Amino acid sequence: MHEKLKLAALRAMIPRMPFNKTLGMRVARAHKDGVTIEIPLREELMNVAGVLHGGVTATIADAAVGVAIWHHFGGRRRATTTELKINYFRPIERGKVVARSRLLRVGKHLVVGSVEITDADGNSAGFATVTYMLLDAAPAHRGG
Amino acid sequence: MHEKLKLAALRAMIPRMPFNKTLGMRVARAHKDGVTIEIPLREELMNVAGVLHGGVTATIADAAVGVAIWHHFGGRRRATTTELKINYFRPIERGKVVARSRLLRVGKHLVVGSVEITDADGNSAGFATVTYMLLDAAPAHRGG
Amino acid sequence: MHEKLKLAALRAMIPRMPFNKTLGMRVARAHKDGVTIEIPLREELMNVAGVLHGGVTATIADAAVGVAIWHHFGGRRRATTTELKINYFRPIERGKVVARSRLLRVGKHLVVGSVEITDADGNSAGFATVTYMLLDAAPAHRGG
Amino acid sequence: MHEKLKLAALRAMIPRMPFNKTLGMRVARAHKDGVTIEIPLREELMNVAGVLHGGVTATIADAAVGVAIWHHFGGRRRATTTELKINYFRPIERGKVVARSRLLRVGKHLVVGSVEITDADGNSAGFATVTYMLLDAAPAHRGG
Repeated sequence: MHEKLKLAALRAMIPRMPFNKTLGMRVARAHKDGVTIEIPLREELMNVAGVLHGGVTATIADAAVGVAIWHHFGGRRRATTTELKINYFRPIERGKVVARSRLLRVGKHLVVGSVEITDADGNSAGFATVTYMLLDAAPAHRGG
Repeated sequence: MHEKLKLAALRAMIPRMPFNKTLGMRVARAHKDGVTIEIPLREELMNVAGVLHGGVTATIADAAVGVAIWHHFGGRRRATTTELKINYFRPIERGKVVARSRLLRVGKHLVVGSVEITDADGNSAGFATVTYMLLDAAPAHRGG
Repeated sequence: MHEKLKLAALRAMIPRMPFNKTLGMRVARAHKDGVTIEIPLREELMNVAGVLHGGVTATIADAAVGVAIWHHFGGRRRATTTELKINYFRPIERGKVVARSRLLRVGKHLVVGSVEITDADGNSAGFATVTYMLLDAAPAHRGG
Repeated sequence: MHEKLKLAALRAMIPRMPFNKTLGMRVARAHKDGVTIEIPLREELMNVAGVLHGGVTATIADAAVGVAIWHHFGGRRRATTTELKINYFRPIERGKVVARSRLLRVGKHLVVGSVEITDADGNSAGFATVTYMLLDAAPAHRGG
């Protein structure tokens, strides 16, 4: 149907998204049905309890589905998050947080993806479901 | 039952929570049933489309319920987020994002709060529901 | 913009929705921003523990937003549920379950509503958020 | 750690849960990490549009995780739903609705499961995440 963006192209997206860059997000792998994204832990991302702030985890879940949609459409469709649901299973204290997204449903208007959140050792740390709405069939980025 | 922490005390919490400090979060008001928190927009918090990243909005929703719980218990109970759900209504492009939390249910183990998200002009921009689990009746912070 | 359906018209909807009729659902009131719906408890709706099944509560939350949308558009737009999130605060053991919906956002494509769930004594029993997608601007019902 | 309840025992649970019996729910299979449950469609379960009511789908998702917990603990722990999130992908018009649950996290207090919803032909029709709270280590049913 269309060519998939290469991993290099996916990786080049992050610096163009200021908040994802602020968090130090990195695309680790592209899969057939989604992507794997990571954020190395550092002091500025922590909560009062010395663990990763849940807002960082929510952000990586949101981004993991967003990048998967970019990947799926070869960058040709713009989309915006309409809702996000996340369950936190255990705190992440060191190393990195890893988000593996899978597109569950690509509809005419809505795309839904699931995200498995793990720590650096592969322990399950959370699970999210994210919905994006596809916008008009405009180019995927401004000024591109 | 116990004395409420004063607004000054609530405000002093933020610098002790590194990621909330990273985002520039500020407690604006304490209410009987919750709190109002704000984050001024700046470039590092934006998404590719020139609008506030949804992860920042999720983070302020999470924090708005967390600070409300702190407020409710006068800082005497620790709590951790177990799940969060957020709906995004419209993008926020400038000014600030404002989160007004309300505690809907304070149970023995779980606390549930709702959060109304607005922009600087008071337009509704989203809505969240956040669940925290109360941890053992330990002091609200380590070594504080 | 259009005339609101009268309460009688809203009430006449329920018998046309088989599962809502199966549950014994009844529109109690129409408000400016939503509706109040009730289901009297009876044995067939209970769970193993002698309390109302959470699935009934989820169903009334879904319907409370659906009927509010019908009310809002005067029955002129069809809509379908795209996602629902519900928190359960306490079990309901007798009397009835009451759902009060409020439309939080009426967008071009999506409508989001919140629902407060209470028991017969007005005690808070749960809280839901429901998203509907508006379908093509067709008549609100088939063959009507 | 304990013996798993046999499929026959799981199946015997449903008639003891009045609302699940009302819906005609049936345990189809027990898996290592969850269960598969089905409800045959019939007129009383439909919505106005001639499709399965989303409340039935939410109910089967809730039950699929509840039965999986029963299965996991060999019926020795009681649990109650604290929250449920569901996304609907496409309507179900005939045959049956099938729910396959997987326990994602079994914590000290909370258990989280995911549920894939499919139609009779195996098409994906929705996805849910359900949280249960484990109650005191009491017998799994009253009068047992």
